[in-house]
Amino acid sequence: MDTNRMMSLAALVKARNAGKAGPELMVALCRDAIARKDERIKAFAHVAEQPAIQANGPLAGVAIGIKDIIDTFDQPTGYGSAAYEGYRPRVDAAIVDLARRQGATIIGKTATTEFAYFQPAWTVNPHNHAHTPGGSSSGSAAAVAAGMIPAAIGTQTGGSVLRPAAFCGVTGYKPSFRLLPTTGMKHFAPSLDTVGLFAAGVADVALLAALLTGRDLAPLAGEPAFDPSGIRVGLYRCAQLETADPAMRAALDKAADRAADAGFDVGEIGEPEALALACDAHSTIQDHEAGLTCGPDLARYPDLLSPVLTQTIERGQAISPSDYDAARRHAKRGRGATRALFSEIDILLTPSAPGAAPHGLETTGDPRFNRLWTLMGTPAISIPGFKDDSGMPLGIQAVARFGQDKRLLQAAAMLETAFRT
Amino acid sequence: MDTNRMMSLAALVKARNAGKAGPELMVALCRDAIARKDERIKAFAHVAEQPAIQANGPLAGVAIGIKDIIDTFDQPTGYGSAAYEGYRPRVDAAIVDLARRQGATIIGKTATTEFAYFQPAWTVNPHNHAHTPGGSSSGSAAAVAAGMIPAAIGTQTGGSVLRPAAFCGVTGYKPSFRLLPTTGMKHFAPSLDTVGLFAAGVADVALLAALLTGRDLAPLAGEPAFDPSGIRVGLYRCAQLETADPAMRAALDKAADRAADAGFDVGEIGEPEALALACDAHSTIQDHEAGLTCGPDLARYPDLLSPVLTQTIERGQAISPSDYDAARRHAKRGRGATRALFSEIDILLTPSAPGAAPHGLETTGDPRFNRLWTLMGTPAISIPGFKDDSGMPLGIQAVARFGQDKRLLQAAAMLETAFRT
Repeated sequence: MDTNRMMSLAALVKARNAGKAGPELMVALCRDAIARKDERIKAFAHVAEQPAIQANGPLAGVAIGIKDIIDTFDQPTGYGSAAYEGYRPRVDAAIVDLARRQGATIIGKTATTEFAYFQPAWTVNPHNHAHTPGGSSSGSAAAVAAGMIPAAIGTQTGGSVLRPAAFCGVTGYKPSFRLLPTTGMKHFAPSLDTVGLFAAGVADVALLAALLTGRDLAPLAGEPAFDPSGIRVGLYRCAQLETADPAMRAALDKAADRAADAGFDVGEIGEPEALALACDAHSTIQDHEAGLTCGPDLARYPDLLSPVLTQTIERGQAISPSDYDAARRHAKRGRGATRALFSEIDILLTPSAPGAAPHGLETTGDPRFNRLWTLMGTPAISIPGFKDDSGMPLGIQAVARFGQDKRLLQAAAMLETAFRT
Repeated sequence: MDTNRMMSLAALVKARNAGKAGPELMVALCRDAIARKDERIKAFAHVAEQPAIQANGPLAGVAIGIKDIIDTFDQPTGYGSAAYEGYRPRVDAAIVDLARRQGATIIGKTATTEFAYFQPAWTVNPHNHAHTPGGSSSGSAAAVAAGMIPAAIGTQTGGSVLRPAAFCGVTGYKPSFRLLPTTGMKHFAPSLDTVGLFAAGVADVALLAALLTGRDLAPLAGEPAFDPSGIRVGLYRCAQLETADPAMRAALDKAADRAADAGFDVGEIGEPEALALACDAHSTIQDHEAGLTCGPDLARYPDLLSPVLTQTIERGQAISPSDYDAARRHAKRGRGATRALFSEIDILLTPSAPGAAPHGLETTGDPRFNRLWTLMGTPAISIPGFKDDSGMPLGIQAVARFGQDKRLLQAAAMLETAFRT
């Protein structure tokens, strides 16, 4: 067990602003933690030998790990693939440039599954090394969970932010589609690929998102306290909820109770048929786009891609445009149904994953509870706090209407406290 | 004058299918034309020394030029920038992979403005070497116009397919947003960047689009002939039409007359206020996204980018998220107004550019008649046929509803004939 000493980004920034720690020391703490822990956790694909430490900027001294499907000009970017071993992009990805412009230190590249798909990395779950950390942002979640770094960048095309966050007991936030730029990431399915953030708690991802985007996403000084009484929270009774583990179903019920105790207006909400159909449409859209997007990799490096990736690219290339168009129509109808759903509630609660992190490192778990919200482009966050009988973390996913990222983060901050009581 | 000998892709494919020419000969013809003409036209940034010629596939023997902001693994990809001189991407862009999978030969990289923005390439207009070929897909348009290759790939973020096509007197087709994949192009503003096609005539771009996408976009054998009588064509009386050259306004009126003569149901249509506002929103959206997307290039290569590009990136980085969001709301309302407009008409006619190609190579002309339709994601095509008093080509832009690419191409094929009569 390497957790319980997670670093809070917000607390670090506060300490720095109070003159209690300088950027050099803050980064040195992380380098030391990585040196002590990463041999076992294997969260990093590469650690910067002499990371650039900036004296100024709101993120000065904040060491951030970058998922290794995201380009960095000063560190190798391997996309989790033998085909890109030692690859050195010319320039940073847009999200990395944003982080540097705010003063952050890019401390290393975090392990990813191959092309952010299903072929696992070597990372283990900090809560139990025999369990998967989830994927595809495996190293991003594990590095934060193990207390090596205060924040990491990841991406989600199916469930690659929410699921590893839940399995590792950290906060994982997938913003509204396009809130964070994707240029310079290794795309898999461009209409789904979303950049997301990992940190210890909700306040940490909110602060990071606010600084990266320049948007009003974190509580401002003097802002009135968040009042949950007018916020309608809906426990989502979708059909696949029956397929979740008993421990997860119990945690979700408990989450609803705690939300009510905290003063939210809690109810239940059913699954519109259009959303069930949209959920099913996700794989057709993803695979067709992966056939186009990763086709060039398969053509160039046929012997260096894993069988599972090769099969998916080939399956995607065989999907007809009319099947793809039909899936896109289901997605469009689903977005209409999502808007209608979020006229009845403000925050939807659903599992971040079917249960806790599965035993074994051969798979990274199942994104079935995440795909829909990736396709809908709605902001979603995995809130930790619950555990199963063996002490492994269980994540509760909160979702809000497209563009309502601030409301989601405010509600999640209060839910986070409620879940822990 | 190096034109009048444009190569028709459809005719070449027909000749090959009839056994009159093999792939080797077809590519050799292009290589010979490039060797004879490109010293003057300067359409190519790079010509493949030994281009791979495929024996099979529907595009076998078809030599295609690729705009040099689009990645090719076997040819340098310079993005029109000193910062990327000699750059060798690991893999092809998705659109290049699609072309190769259909048997095409990638014969070279066509000249582009820097990052597909406004800093000109060295290409001249084949119709008059003292005039610009337009931009940013300068080389793609000029290479087709000069009869060096039957087809080229380009991109449009403002007016970079339609404008050079019009200036060079070729057909330029910007499909519905996302019909052709953009992965592996140098992005500038991802919500606008669109891959487009250049060829001699409408039938040529339609055949190429059909083969690249696997979609029913070109007339099929046995399909009933296109009947224009039910097709409502609207001459678009937007405010900025007054800013077009007199020759262009006369050509547009003539285009409407010819369309009526050909049997289309022709009328006029006014400019909805929402579309005037959406048109104005284009630069805010483009510049903000360019600030994010090209920020990493400016950070890494501050001395290698042109002043005009540097200023635009910096201006984009200074645009606030709330101004960007407001522009996106205007765009969204504009898409609603566009849907309403295309319930009244099927095909909209408007200039492809304010006039013929301007004299001089210092600028690439003005995209003011193209930006709106890029932002709306609607398919658009520049149809040649008219000329100004000095004999320089004038392009008429036809636009259809999102997703109605086939109808647009069918109507454009008939209009093309009508314009030439």
